[in-house]
Amino acid sequence: MSSVSQDTITLADYVFARLHQLGIRSVFGVPGDYNLRLLDFVEPSGLHWVGNCNELNSAYAADAYARIHGVSALITTFGVGELSAVNGIAGAYAEKAPIISIVGTPARATQEARTNVHHTFADGDFDRFAAMHTHVTIAQTNLLDPRTAPEQFDVTVQQALIHSRPVYIQLPADMVDVKVSAAGLKSKISLPPTAYGDNESKVSGRILELMHSAKKPLIFVDGESRCLDILDEINELVKITGWPVWTSPFGKGLVDEHLESFQGIYNADLGSENAKTYFESADLALVLGPHFSSTNTALFSTIPKQAISISFSERHVKIGTEITRDVSNKKLVANLLDQLDCNKISKSEALSKPTKVKPSVESSGSLTQKDFYRVINPMLKPGDIIMGETGTASHGTRDLVLPRGSYYFTAVTWLSIGYMLPAALGASMAQRDSEKWRNRSGSTDASEDRVVLFIGDGSLQMTVQEISTMIREKLNIIIVVINNDGYTIERVIHGRKQTYNDIAPWRYLQALNMFGADEDEVFMEREDAQGLLLKLLNNQRARESSKI
Amino acid sequence: MSSVSQDTITLADYVFARLHQLGIRSVFGVPGDYNLRLLDFVEPSGLHWVGNCNELNSAYAADAYARIHGVSALITTFGVGELSAVNGIAGAYAEKAPIISIVGTPARATQEARTNVHHTFADGDFDRFAAMHTHVTIAQTNLLDPRTAPEQFDVTVQQALIHSRPVYIQLPADMVDVKVSAAGLKSKISLPPTAYGDNESKVSGRILELMHSAKKPLIFVDGESRCLDILDEINELVKITGWPVWTSPFGKGLVDEHLESFQGIYNADLGSENAKTYFESADLALVLGPHFSSTNTALFSTIPKQAISISFSERHVKIGTEITRDVSNKKLVANLLDQLDCNKISKSEALSKPTKVKPSVESSGSLTQKDFYRVINPMLKPGDIIMGETGTASHGTRDLVLPRGSYYFTAVTWLSIGYMLPAALGASMAQRDSEKWRNRSGSTDASEDRVVLFIGDGSLQMTVQEISTMIREKLNIIIVVINNDGYTIERVIHGRKQTYNDIAPWRYLQALNMFGADEDEVFMEREDAQGLLLKLLNNQRARESSKI
Repeated sequence: MSSVSQDTITLADYVFARLHQLGIRSVFGVPGDYNLRLLDFVEPSGLHWVGNCNELNSAYAADAYARIHGVSALITTFGVGELSAVNGIAGAYAEKAPIISIVGTPARATQEARTNVHHTFADGDFDRFAAMHTHVTIAQTNLLDPRTAPEQFDVTVQQALIHSRPVYIQLPADMVDVKVSAAGLKSKISLPPTAYGDNESKVSGRILELMHSAKKPLIFVDGESRCLDILDEINELVKITGWPVWTSPFGKGLVDEHLESFQGIYNADLGSENAKTYFESADLALVLGPHFSSTNTALFSTIPKQAISISFSERHVKIGTEITRDVSNKKLVANLLDQLDCNKISKSEALSKPTKVKPSVESSGSLTQKDFYRVINPMLKPGDIIMGETGTASHGTRDLVLPRGSYYFTAVTWLSIGYMLPAALGASMAQRDSEKWRNRSGSTDASEDRVVLFIGDGSLQMTVQEISTMIREKLNIIIVVINNDGYTIERVIHGRKQTYNDIAPWRYLQALNMFGADEDEVFMEREDAQGLLLKLLNNQRARESSKI
Repeated sequence: MSSVSQDTITLADYVFARLHQLGIRSVFGVPGDYNLRLLDFVEPSGLHWVGNCNELNSAYAADAYARIHGVSALITTFGVGELSAVNGIAGAYAEKAPIISIVGTPARATQEARTNVHHTFADGDFDRFAAMHTHVTIAQTNLLDPRTAPEQFDVTVQQALIHSRPVYIQLPADMVDVKVSAAGLKSKISLPPTAYGDNESKVSGRILELMHSAKKPLIFVDGESRCLDILDEINELVKITGWPVWTSPFGKGLVDEHLESFQGIYNADLGSENAKTYFESADLALVLGPHFSSTNTALFSTIPKQAISISFSERHVKIGTEITRDVSNKKLVANLLDQLDCNKISKSEALSKPTKVKPSVESSGSLTQKDFYRVINPMLKPGDIIMGETGTASHGTRDLVLPRGSYYFTAVTWLSIGYMLPAALGASMAQRDSEKWRNRSGSTDASEDRVVLFIGDGSLQMTVQEISTMIREKLNIIIVVINNDGYTIERVIHGRKQTYNDIAPWRYLQALNMFGADEDEVFMEREDAQGLLLKLLNNQRARESSKI
């Protein structure tokens, strides 16, 4: 073997070796004419191919995998596949999930000759779909040239990692087998240094000053903290300061809910009077990973006042209105933890814990929305991923007390109903695959990890077929279907009695069996009263279950 | 009431009155926060709201409704809804189905203030999704101003009708109730004259000359003939000339298959030797509505030679390589029919009819792909809409002999699997609603009209939930599921034994019941042998059935 051939590799092998290096073990997608040859290389690369029922479902699954593992991969086919997936890609852009979206495209000769092949508009234009993706991805590339393809791939994936947003990579069918340099594989794709200066020291002095002088400080954890890679540091910060910590809905689950000073989701006018009083009279707010959409801030009412805020986000650190760019949040928070003088900081006034109704299976009377989540809370356990689909499930699950080492998904900004069911598949695959997840959850036995999904009937109908992939993959997922006969969250917003908020009545209990499950593999039960619910909670056989 | 108020109407009422004038009776879509108020006006306008399970399914259904009725309407919500539908819109663009896609968007004040509401990327940008739609629609407009909204709507819809392609219309939530001028409603939206000259006479002289002198003429009917509004004229042309007529797959069903000189789909090397010899030595080809994608032309092998072709398409009439624009095909073909001298034209050499195996329920041995369609052919009847989903069903159904007054869908260029099931819903709604369909099919009893869908298991899984809408609407649809355990058409192309072409095994027989049908409403049967198949064919109860 010549030294040249030792240093070369097919482009497909290069791509999948990179995914493997990133810790990715499962790849989502649907086969199509322009990606078939590429798919030949997936399993031989040590990756598992998860064939989804359709491409939107794949994208949703890849989104959740990325949130749990830190990055994910999706393969679709030119035109029909990628456009079916695009709403999922957009959601990943909106809520920051770094999906590496690889699209198998027609061979270069076909494109150059502008041949009117299928999956085009028969007009010789091969650039439309890439143009559409520029609006919903953070970086795009087209691997047309073997000389540059490896580096193009690497820098594009790097953008996904830096910004925690999806990227779009076209791979023509005739490039799959082309030999490229393997040299890049010797080092992993890594994040570049934030900058070569030392902005962290510059701002940490000023921040420490404010922290040492604050009389009534608070910590506010929002969802983009996940992408800043500072979750351990945040928990440490809460522990050593003892300052009251609130989250947004997007931030729920990112800070340990069993810490002494944990207050829950801040709800402004809709929450406790005590919390509101403290929040509004605070003189310092450390705001971590802000994501200030209307739906994540109770219509902008829960945003800490800018004048007292120090916010840590991907683009910059902001003290009041003063912005410093090119700062590593990880380094900065480490600096703060290192230099903070615990004797100097305010012990904060005693803030009575929110009057939390203790989770309990004891209850009486009819089952209300509020009761339901309180009653079901004790069934949750460490290592669970708990998901509340857009709609009433999203609101209900916000009140759950999360076990340590669990993770929580809720509707935040994109709010595309149907997302959460394929997302449960993706999250569960990540639970099984991801070393990063095991480190985070402290899970010792991956086979005990579960996903618990709460979902309304309207949402379920959107993407229901992905249950069959859960069954095929033998995943440990509990699906609780909140059957309230239609788009209830829309009824609350508008059209309470309008027929357009009705949906077809299904026999949900038959779904698992129809989608291929054997009866000894799954557990299903219809519940419409308190007593039956208790039974469900106590049933240890519950593997996949359906509450109707 | 003042004269001013008499002449005004809410924008929503204006829009729906227009749809009603176009003969549209059912509107497809999914409710969402930004279209709820708009939906309040649908049913009061005399339109039926078909709430689909998800937006891609709505777009597919609207596509088929447009192909049968000539135009259709779809309502989705900003961001999540419209992007879920966009692959269906793209397919309608590729294969020419005029969908009026109306997107409910946030109120103008919200957009102008760049408020970070849900269904955005929380970056104040409200223009991305419209920009994406410029690639897949023929015209776009945003109804922001009451003074111009009615005319904007009208000219945009007119573009859909002219080009037979989807258009994209944004309607902000606060514009729904705004009063606009009702003056436009007095006249229907109509097609403009092609031009004010008389290009038709100019070219018809030249074409008649060629028709009168041709020794070996043929007629080739392709799928875009549907959009030229000349189907009656084409059938007349075939009748009076007696010239052999072939179609493309896309053109199948547009010309009466029982006419004496009807030859079937032209298949070049893959068809009969006789047909090929004639086709290749012909000295004149009248090419109607050409749509020359690879998949519609057996890899470009069935395209009549340009030198002997006169082609009639939306943009121009082409004699050889000579293009004349701004021609009304309808007027031109009428001129030809009027002025053609039947004594002068070639009676064409006797062309033996293709050796067609007579459709029959008698057969023996095991059931092959070829046998299956031959055996099932006699169950088809006038007024049926017959649909062959992308994959083996598409190839199999091409051999069916279509009853008079039926219509045929097959995969042509977009080939998005999953399309055909929601399309069956849309086609069936159009059968029920459309006066245009009744005129075409000659159906006297709409309740007897049926849709017969042939679909593979892989395709079915993509969009299966739309069966529930069929059940809810009590439509007369027969679904024949060709269960061949995976993406068989992909196995033929590449990866015959690869696991990525596998799909999950479902229990298809349970689907109808699970999706809400009562047992006395539907009929299902699993078939795996010839005898059982015959039973299915003879079963008069067959309303919705499932062949597995």
